[in-house]
Amino acid sequence: MRIAVLGGDGYCGWATALYLSSKGHAVAIVDNFIRRQWDHELSAQTLTPIQPLSERLRAWYRLTGRVIDLYIGDVTDYEFLLTSLLSFEPDTIVHFAEQRSAPYSMIDRKHAVLTQVNNVVGTLNVLFAMREALPNCHLVKLGTMGEYGTPNIDIEEGYLAVEHNGRKDVLPFPKQPGSFYHLSKVHDSHNMMFACKIWGLRATDLNQGVVYGTMTREVALDEALINRFDYDEVFGTVLNRFCVQAAIGQPLTVYGKGGQTRGFLDIRDTVRCIELACLNPAAAGECRVYNQFTEQFSILDLAFKVQQAGKALGLNVEIDHLPDPRVEAEHHYYNARHSKLVDLGLQPHNLSDSLLDSLVNIAVKYKDRVDPALMLPQVNWREPRNNRRIQIGMAARSAAAAAAPEETDVSVGKSRKN
Amino acid sequence: MRIAVLGGDGYCGWATALYLSSKGHAVAIVDNFIRRQWDHELSAQTLTPIQPLSERLRAWYRLTGRVIDLYIGDVTDYEFLLTSLLSFEPDTIVHFAEQRSAPYSMIDRKHAVLTQVNNVVGTLNVLFAMREALPNCHLVKLGTMGEYGTPNIDIEEGYLAVEHNGRKDVLPFPKQPGSFYHLSKVHDSHNMMFACKIWGLRATDLNQGVVYGTMTREVALDEALINRFDYDEVFGTVLNRFCVQAAIGQPLTVYGKGGQTRGFLDIRDTVRCIELACLNPAAAGECRVYNQFTEQFSILDLAFKVQQAGKALGLNVEIDHLPDPRVEAEHHYYNARHSKLVDLGLQPHNLSDSLLDSLVNIAVKYKDRVDPALMLPQVNWREPRNNRRIQIGMAARSAAAAAAPEETDVSVGKSRKN
Repeated sequence: MRIAVLGGDGYCGWATALYLSSKGHAVAIVDNFIRRQWDHELSAQTLTPIQPLSERLRAWYRLTGRVIDLYIGDVTDYEFLLTSLLSFEPDTIVHFAEQRSAPYSMIDRKHAVLTQVNNVVGTLNVLFAMREALPNCHLVKLGTMGEYGTPNIDIEEGYLAVEHNGRKDVLPFPKQPGSFYHLSKVHDSHNMMFACKIWGLRATDLNQGVVYGTMTREVALDEALINRFDYDEVFGTVLNRFCVQAAIGQPLTVYGKGGQTRGFLDIRDTVRCIELACLNPAAAGECRVYNQFTEQFSILDLAFKVQQAGKALGLNVEIDHLPDPRVEAEHHYYNARHSKLVDLGLQPHNLSDSLLDSLVNIAVKYKDRVDPALMLPQVNWREPRNNRRIQIGMAARSAAAAAAPEETDVSVGKSRKN
Repeated sequence: MRIAVLGGDGYCGWATALYLSSKGHAVAIVDNFIRRQWDHELSAQTLTPIQPLSERLRAWYRLTGRVIDLYIGDVTDYEFLLTSLLSFEPDTIVHFAEQRSAPYSMIDRKHAVLTQVNNVVGTLNVLFAMREALPNCHLVKLGTMGEYGTPNIDIEEGYLAVEHNGRKDVLPFPKQPGSFYHLSKVHDSHNMMFACKIWGLRATDLNQGVVYGTMTREVALDEALINRFDYDEVFGTVLNRFCVQAAIGQPLTVYGKGGQTRGFLDIRDTVRCIELACLNPAAAGECRVYNQFTEQFSILDLAFKVQQAGKALGLNVEIDHLPDPRVEAEHHYYNARHSKLVDLGLQPHNLSDSLLDSLVNIAVKYKDRVDPALMLPQVNWREPRNNRRIQIGMAARSAAAAAAPEETDVSVGKSRKN
């Protein structure tokens, strides 16, 4: 199968591109490296030392003999996108090429607008390109479980059977997203459903949970293939951040009570879910929705698990409750279905195993690269402008203080006032 | 009350600005005249000869002694919007400043992107400006009944009480919009609900039906105040178009079977609904939704009503069924609530009365200005690019042929093949 991976230089995209290539699919990556630019903007770096994409692809070819094609450009540039797709002629487009951080979208108005315009226009362009040039192509689009919010009823996979005043229908599941980023994915979902309806396109909307981990079998082949592992408050997903905090002796930063419950999955399951969606395409005109996660936990559950895993490695892990910078329920009902990908053959990895296999140990391995100041929240949902303070000096101080834990605590206490 | 009317030079915006001014409110119009630019792009003109906004405002002052302030610029330009709002300090912002035509949004990719970016960014800017500068201001935002689509259950006003697997919640009513324009309003609605939740803003989302008519009491004061009356296939709402077709002897262009049922309202009710929403603001943190229409009809119902009204004026009105250029159900269940504005005091005008009062007669009065070619659909939902053919010669021929009805029929028949 010929598969174009839009955003193939990013966290999920890179792991997916290698996995699909290893399975014998012809893979092309489409990327404009904006994600690397955002690292500079935030003065943050992935924990793991990732290589430029050209180096990564050279290493992949050297190690496996497999070639991954590369188209460098922006999917919001329609001429570029259309030309690239006409050149590669994919059977499936896997679309990761979006701004994917909730805190980034909440920094200020410009970041909210950038996120929504970038994501909505990119997806519109993909849909139009399919209609104009590749009407039988299957779109596998990354959505997020965060589109649903936390309703007081069970969350279904995309659609809800409703009975109301004695009449019945199956309707799109109501959405209550919790950031301008999550909203952008809701906008995409509505646009996709409509495009499938009017043009007979095929699409799978994967409402993914919070991804953790960095090691997939392919990435582990060589240091040059290593995937990004974001731990900063903006792009770092919560479990990755907790593992880094555990590794350097910073208390885990639980937002509020920690009763916020979400769906989670190992990045090794992400890549398999994508492949399953590709291998089992949607019908013409169908916009199907899969909830892509394997286990659900509260944030406090996660903190306790990391604490336990740390103990096994001789780490003393403390848990700190910070005022929640987000506007969200800190305790709520949460029960989300996630059976469709399992029905297609997904065999989930278990968080308890992964924690020691490929999470805390990675964090410990690279702990000299950690900037502790990056993990403290500086983006408050309640503010329309968050001037993130970049404190290079303080970061250096904190790094130095990592050897003397008492001082680290003081430094963390100060940062909390930001 | 100080009320800023964004998009106050447009169809609903102009009528609203005058009505609110006549009621003694301090009114400011914010507009960039892009709607007039779109007339040029489409080679279309309003049936009624509207004056430049400066002339309109001068006439209003001359006739009533009332001043309406004017801020000229684009609400997608945040610095302009913020400065204007800081200068005027409104208690209420009425937001009409969006691209409001479904066919316009379906012309091609560029028009789809323009519509969604313009509308989403404009509304995001309004929300941020309120949070930054006017946190107690009340936003009255125009949505559309088209956000709901045509579900097989009763349509409620914005929210639906759901019982599912033995648990209950009240959730945003599921949305199934039918064009990239209608989708943009769904995106806005989700963004607004979120902004009210995180920032405690006050908002009323008015899901308006299809508006008809042009004469309000204020507009009728003087020819210089006349409102636009769009009848072209892109911006003309269906009933206005039917009336113009009746006036010039062109068969009414019913799309498909005509069983498409929608909510409708007289523009005199639009302006009153807006005032009612302004006078009864939402609570802090509340994003309430009112369905703003007064009667529901199928398209074929409307055609018959226009046929009957035409008979009373001695016009012989034929009804033609064209292949539906839209992708929509041509027969469906439709029952939408619309009691909240009536509860606040709305006394609806009746379509049957208005048809002869202020619709067919206006169309007859200005029929020399009609370009018959503009009413035939050239935007097909199923196509990703619609190259609208502007046939000035043909329009002139058709105008000439208006005196000789047999030839008009031939011309219409030809146009249908476009």
